[in-house]
Amino acid sequence: MPTALERRARLLGPQMTTFYQDPLHVVRGEGVWLWDKDGRRYLDCYNNVPHVGHCHPRVVEAISHQAGTLNTHTRYVHDLILDYGEALTAKFSHDLSSLLMVCSGSEANDVALRMAQAMTGKTGIIGTDNTYHGNTAAVSQLNSSKVPVGGYQDHVRQVPAPDNMAPVGGTREGQAEAFAKGVEAAIAELEANGHGVSAMILCPYFANEGFPTIEAGFLDRAIAAVRRAGGVIIADEVQPGFGRIGSHWWGHERLGFEPDIVTLGKPMANGHPVAAVVTRPEILATFQDAFKYFNTFGGNPVSAAAAMAVLQVIEDEALVANAQSVGDYALSSVNDLKGNHDVIADVRGVGLFFGVELWRDGKPATDLCAAMVDEMRDRGVLLHSVGRYENTLKVRPPCVFSQDNADLLVQVMDDALRAVG
Amino acid sequence: MPTALERRARLLGPQMTTFYQDPLHVVRGEGVWLWDKDGRRYLDCYNNVPHVGHCHPRVVEAISHQAGTLNTHTRYVHDLILDYGEALTAKFSHDLSSLLMVCSGSEANDVALRMAQAMTGKTGIIGTDNTYHGNTAAVSQLNSSKVPVGGYQDHVRQVPAPDNMAPVGGTREGQAEAFAKGVEAAIAELEANGHGVSAMILCPYFANEGFPTIEAGFLDRAIAAVRRAGGVIIADEVQPGFGRIGSHWWGHERLGFEPDIVTLGKPMANGHPVAAVVTRPEILATFQDAFKYFNTFGGNPVSAAAAMAVLQVIEDEALVANAQSVGDYALSSVNDLKGNHDVIADVRGVGLFFGVELWRDGKPATDLCAAMVDEMRDRGVLLHSVGRYENTLKVRPPCVFSQDNADLLVQVMDDALRAVG
Repeated sequence: MPTALERRARLLGPQMTTFYQDPLHVVRGEGVWLWDKDGRRYLDCYNNVPHVGHCHPRVVEAISHQAGTLNTHTRYVHDLILDYGEALTAKFSHDLSSLLMVCSGSEANDVALRMAQAMTGKTGIIGTDNTYHGNTAAVSQLNSSKVPVGGYQDHVRQVPAPDNMAPVGGTREGQAEAFAKGVEAAIAELEANGHGVSAMILCPYFANEGFPTIEAGFLDRAIAAVRRAGGVIIADEVQPGFGRIGSHWWGHERLGFEPDIVTLGKPMANGHPVAAVVTRPEILATFQDAFKYFNTFGGNPVSAAAAMAVLQVIEDEALVANAQSVGDYALSSVNDLKGNHDVIADVRGVGLFFGVELWRDGKPATDLCAAMVDEMRDRGVLLHSVGRYENTLKVRPPCVFSQDNADLLVQVMDDALRAVG
Repeated sequence: MPTALERRARLLGPQMTTFYQDPLHVVRGEGVWLWDKDGRRYLDCYNNVPHVGHCHPRVVEAISHQAGTLNTHTRYVHDLILDYGEALTAKFSHDLSSLLMVCSGSEANDVALRMAQAMTGKTGIIGTDNTYHGNTAAVSQLNSSKVPVGGYQDHVRQVPAPDNMAPVGGTREGQAEAFAKGVEAAIAELEANGHGVSAMILCPYFANEGFPTIEAGFLDRAIAAVRRAGGVIIADEVQPGFGRIGSHWWGHERLGFEPDIVTLGKPMANGHPVAAVVTRPEILATFQDAFKYFNTFGGNPVSAAAAMAVLQVIEDEALVANAQSVGDYALSSVNDLKGNHDVIADVRGVGLFFGVELWRDGKPATDLCAAMVDEMRDRGVLLHSVGRYENTLKVRPPCVFSQDNADLLVQVMDDALRAVG
C-alpha cells in the first residue's frame, strides 16, 4: 500500500514540493486552525487564502446555496456579478470602477499586462528583481526566482527591490531614490531596445520581496518616470489587498499612489478560485476592443456569491480593524523577543502581514530560518519563509487572527528560537 | 434605476457580449433546464460545462461538504487530489498517468505549450486556422477568430482545418491527406524560421472548427510528420472529453491516436473552476525541472471533490452510454428535418455534440443561423452557432439529455425553421 507521499510523487510529479521536512497531511480547517490526519491541531499563521478564516460558515453557505441554485457563465445576465462588482469597486477610488473576473491571480496579471499593452501600444514591463506575479507563460517572465521555460525575453526589466537589511543604494533612507533610479535605467533600456514601457507592475507591499519597510510616497518618483515614458501602473494586490494591512483596504492606498490597473486573487473568495482585474472603464474597453476576452468560469454566480460573502464578512466582523489592532499587538510582542535572541536582525510588517529576519555572524541565517519553519510546525504553529535569502519568517494568517493567537505564536517562536537558535 | 444590462455595460465593459438579441437573465438551473427571472423555463441544448446537469445534487453536496471541511492548497498533503488523480488517470491509456491541476482550460493549455517547449527545446506550435484554445497571452496566439493583443507572433502556424462543406483539398475523402500536407508545410516553415516544432495542438473533435465529419486515422499522417520533426501532440479535450461523444471517453480514442499531453477543462467539475493537464510522468517531470510551477487554487480539496463527484456521476448514471444512445436518436431525428427544409445543408456530429449547417442560394446562411438561434431562444430552446461562417447550429447539452428532450429540440427546430427559414 503506497503512502500518500508516494502516491503524490507518482501522480503529481516528484518535483511537486510540499511545505516542511515532515509534510503536513491536512484533513480539516476552521478559523485559524488546521487539523492533520492524526487529529493534531495547528495554528495557521501563514495562509492568506482563507482570508476570513478556514471554512467560514457564511462563505460555505453562500457557495452551497448558489451551487445548488445556478452556476453558469457571463454570456447570460446574472445579478450576482453585478451586485458584487458594485460592492467591490466601491472600495476603490480614482475611477477604478470596472472589473473583469477570472479564476486566478495568474490569469488576472496575464490580462493586466495585455491591458497595458493595448493602452500604450508598447510591450516593455518593469518589475523587481525579487518577485513573483504568477505562473502563466507571459507572467512567469516577471519571476525572479523561477526562471521561465525558455528563459527570459528582452521586454522585461527587473529593477533592484527595496530591502531592509541590504537596502538599494546603501541606506534605508536613500532607497526610494535608488529604486527610482533603477526604474529610470530600466525605462532607458526598454526605450533603447524598442519595446518602450507599457507597464510597471508591483506588489504595493513588496510581499515576495520580503515586505521591506517603506512609507507613503516611496514609489512617487518611480511612478512619475513610468508615466512620463507613457507606461501605466499595475498594482498586484493579491497579497496586501482586502484589508490585510490593517490601515487600508489596499496596499496602494497606504503608499498613496493611484494605479491604473489593480489585480486581485488569493483571498478574494476565501479559497474558491476567484480573481479579478479592476481598472478604469477606458482601459477595460480598450482591452476588449483589442481582444474579445471571455473567461468561462470567471465571474460565474457561485464565484460571485463566494466573493460577496467574503466582502460582507470583512465588513461585518470588522476584519480590517482587527488586522490593524492584532497586527500591532503581535508585531510589538515579536519585537520584544529581540532582547532574548541575537539572531533576530529585523522585525517588520504592518497589519496581519509581518515577519522576523534572521541573521547570524553577519550573514543571512537561511538554514536557521528553514529549521525554525520546521521546528514551529513540530510545535503546532504554521508559518513559512520569504526574502532574497529565505531568511525571514513570514507571518500572514487568516484575518480572524486574535490576540490570544498572537500570544501563542510569539510564545512558540520564543521556544523554537531557543531550541534551534 | 439602471437595468441589469446597463449595470453590466458599466461594470463589465460595453464589449462584454451576451448571447441572444434579447439576453437571457438566468436565475435557476436543474438538469437540462434553466429558468429566467420571469419564471420561464428553457431547455439547455448548449451548455457543456454543467456536464452532469445543472446543479446536480451529488456535485453540490460534494462541494458543500468539502467547502465546510477544508479548502487549502497542494503544498500540504491531502487525500482527495490523490484519489481523484488515480480515478481520472485510470481513464487514460499509454502512460498518461500524471496530472497537474489548474483552474481553467486556458491555464491548462498555457502549461501544455510549455511542457512541449521544455520537452523538445523548440518553440513552434501548429494549430488550425479556425480554432480557439483559451485566453492567456500565450494561448491566444493560437486563436484564429480573436487576433491576440499585439498581433500574431511567428512561432505559430495555422493550418487549414477540415470542413464538411468546404473540405481542405476539395473533397471530404481527400481531407486527411490535404490536412497532413498543411501540417507538413507548417513544419517546413517553422524549421526554416528557426522555431522548430514543439507541438501540434488540436481538439480531436475539431469542436471550434465546426466538428467536421472525420474518422479514425484522420490525423495519422499529420501526427507522424510532427513526431518526425521532434514535436509532441497535445489533445485539447476540453470540449469532447468526459464521454460527451458517446463512443469513447476521449476524442483521441475515437480517432485512434495517442497524444503526449491532454488538456481538460469546462465539464470537469460541472462548473467549479477546475481544469487539468494529463501527461506522461516524464513530461511532467521535465516541465517541473524547467519551471517550478505551483497553482494556488489548482487541485484544492474542494476542486478535487467536485471533480470526483462528476466522475462518479458519469459512471453511476451511465452518461457515456446515454450520450451515445440519445445522441444517435437526436441526430437521426434532426436528419429527418432535411426533407422539410432545403436550408439544411449538412447534419453531423457524434454523441451529444451535433449540429445543423445552413446554406441558402449556394452560400453559408450566416444571418439565417443567427435568426434561428434567437428564434429558438424565444421558443424556449437554447443553442448557439459555430463554424467558419457561424452558419451551423451547435447542439451540446448537458449529458443527462433524454430522448424526450431531443424530441422537444427537434420539434422546436422544425417550427423555428418554418418561422424564420
